[in-house]
Amino acid sequence: MVRRQAVGIRDLARELGMSISTVSRAMNARPDVSPETQRLVRETAERLGYTPNQSGRSLRQGTTDTVALVMPTHTARTESGETFFLNVSDGLQEVLSPRGLNLVILPCGSAEQPDEFLFKAVDRHLADAIVLADTQRVDRRIDYLIEKKVPFVGLGRTEAGGYSWLDLDFEGVAAQSVDRLVGLGHRRIALGTTDRTVNNTFLFLDSYRASLERHGIGYDPELVIRVPDTRQGGYHLAARLLAAPHRPTAVILEQETLAIGLYRALADAGLTPGRDLAVIGFRENPVLDLLTPSLTCFRVSLTNYGRRLGHLVLAEMARAGSAGPLTQEVWPMELVSGDSDGAPLG
Amino acid sequence: MVRRQAVGIRDLARELGMSISTVSRAMNARPDVSPETQRLVRETAERLGYTPNQSGRSLRQGTTDTVALVMPTHTARTESGETFFLNVSDGLQEVLSPRGLNLVILPCGSAEQPDEFLFKAVDRHLADAIVLADTQRVDRRIDYLIEKKVPFVGLGRTEAGGYSWLDLDFEGVAAQSVDRLVGLGHRRIALGTTDRTVNNTFLFLDSYRASLERHGIGYDPELVIRVPDTRQGGYHLAARLLAAPHRPTAVILEQETLAIGLYRALADAGLTPGRDLAVIGFRENPVLDLLTPSLTCFRVSLTNYGRRLGHLVLAEMARAGSAGPLTQEVWPMELVSGDSDGAPLG
Repeated sequence: MVRRQAVGIRDLARELGMSISTVSRAMNARPDVSPETQRLVRETAERLGYTPNQSGRSLRQGTTDTVALVMPTHTARTESGETFFLNVSDGLQEVLSPRGLNLVILPCGSAEQPDEFLFKAVDRHLADAIVLADTQRVDRRIDYLIEKKVPFVGLGRTEAGGYSWLDLDFEGVAAQSVDRLVGLGHRRIALGTTDRTVNNTFLFLDSYRASLERHGIGYDPELVIRVPDTRQGGYHLAARLLAAPHRPTAVILEQETLAIGLYRALADAGLTPGRDLAVIGFRENPVLDLLTPSLTCFRVSLTNYGRRLGHLVLAEMARAGSAGPLTQEVWPMELVSGDSDGAPLG
Repeated sequence: MVRRQAVGIRDLARELGMSISTVSRAMNARPDVSPETQRLVRETAERLGYTPNQSGRSLRQGTTDTVALVMPTHTARTESGETFFLNVSDGLQEVLSPRGLNLVILPCGSAEQPDEFLFKAVDRHLADAIVLADTQRVDRRIDYLIEKKVPFVGLGRTEAGGYSWLDLDFEGVAAQSVDRLVGLGHRRIALGTTDRTVNNTFLFLDSYRASLERHGIGYDPELVIRVPDTRQGGYHLAARLLAAPHRPTAVILEQETLAIGLYRALADAGLTPGRDLAVIGFRENPVLDLLTPSLTCFRVSLTNYGRRLGHLVLAEMARAGSAGPLTQEVWPMELVSGDSDGAPLG
């Protein structure tokens, strides 16, 4: 694919030694830019062959200077304090913005069908590159992006490869959690997981199972409890754990916000996390600050994660149409010891 | 302003009796649409004069079929579970989507300057209409939108009028909170408010003051405690309340997530909300479910609020360029009685 390298506002700003914002305001004859500066900017724009109209530019150049983050906004999840994507977007924007790239979020609401939503976004050529979150084990959207030759980065993996992605270390978290609980003497370790179909639930489950088997503990599918990814889900999880004929002594949460309902339900039953049931959550999340005892979990700087994502996006845009190397990175998370997995079993 | 009414994909879909998605996929020769359908769609498109390329369309029609929600994504706030905007966007999209309008979120990150951010978004003609959140008491962005004749709705008010807006009933919440606490015997009622400059902090403060005076209680500026809108802010608030020479017996929170740090700091001091200090929070927020005693607060369906916002956006787009009536609505919130403001003072 040959890409015409037309003059963008970034080139114009660089040539003039001005900020993009000043150039933009000058081109729009804003009163806070002096007539002299406005004239200089317009003359330089003409000399370099730059046209400011966004629609005109994208038609001519095939570029919108925009990166789109396709993000789920299912109400139940966001209500539970799942602000993961907003924090990631802050770091992402920090990398893109100084390079003259605008970040837009395309919210895939609860009334949307995620595949069609992405297909439409691609067909509309709204962005030069896409960050695709909530990747499924088998994800038709990835095929479509590849087919349409849209530069993109998966914020998450799928079963198939062949594209660049950045993902959290779900396997590492599951393995460390099992190791830690086994070390404390636990053998009946449940997994509280969500009923969503995103790929990371599979990665987590596979690693949980492999880790148990590494310790010589047989995998018991009865101990894998799937609940909705909401606060009610946490209550259901507790009810299922307490009703189990041979009650587990520990539970690993694949989604940390399940702890809200879980703690509440345990308290209602007169039970204390860390004493009556060992609990390890997934991501350290400030909304869980109120949990007593504090939750053992895993730390990640979402802003840094977002920044790294930004660099992957830039790399994908640079290699668009060429057969350059892919970037596929698993991002580590750091164990934060809390009081929820308590002392060794007596 | 005369607006050329070019044929959009909605018109084409209506003419064909097909969904927009099917028409889009047919125009893009997607393999899951039969060759016959593809031919029919293309022929009809040609007959009606429809061109599918988004950039081409916006150049020709001056319309992008897109509504942009300009949203702050300051990390500290979102980390505290402030997912207000994502929930509102879900309802907003529910109204816009069936009308063929796409919602994009323009995240104004912590590294951005909000005024410049909005000016750039307008200059880029990315959207046909804008929803502007986080309105300031004096807001240059509003002036710019009016000057540029961009259809927009304020998700919040400013000191000046002259545009359509939808806002929560901050005055009503402050008044009801004061009335309730005075009814329980409180006279020294503090206000925990944020150090942000959004207009609603002023509305809340003005109503708090007027309500106290209505009850014959003098306004004491020492009792208005400004803290950052973060979990740390809640700790600071508690420290300031406890250090006051003549300690308040009650506090009203203008931002409910302050309760997280406040409860924690009170517990550290051996004090219990509702017994040692009456607390009323602002919005009922599921991330506060873990608070014991439960927080007295005010309920609002953010999805319904977002839906109403969608209808205001449609009205603004319909009246673009004409001098039709403005819509300015204060959205009520319903008191939810918790245990945090306890029994009448002894």
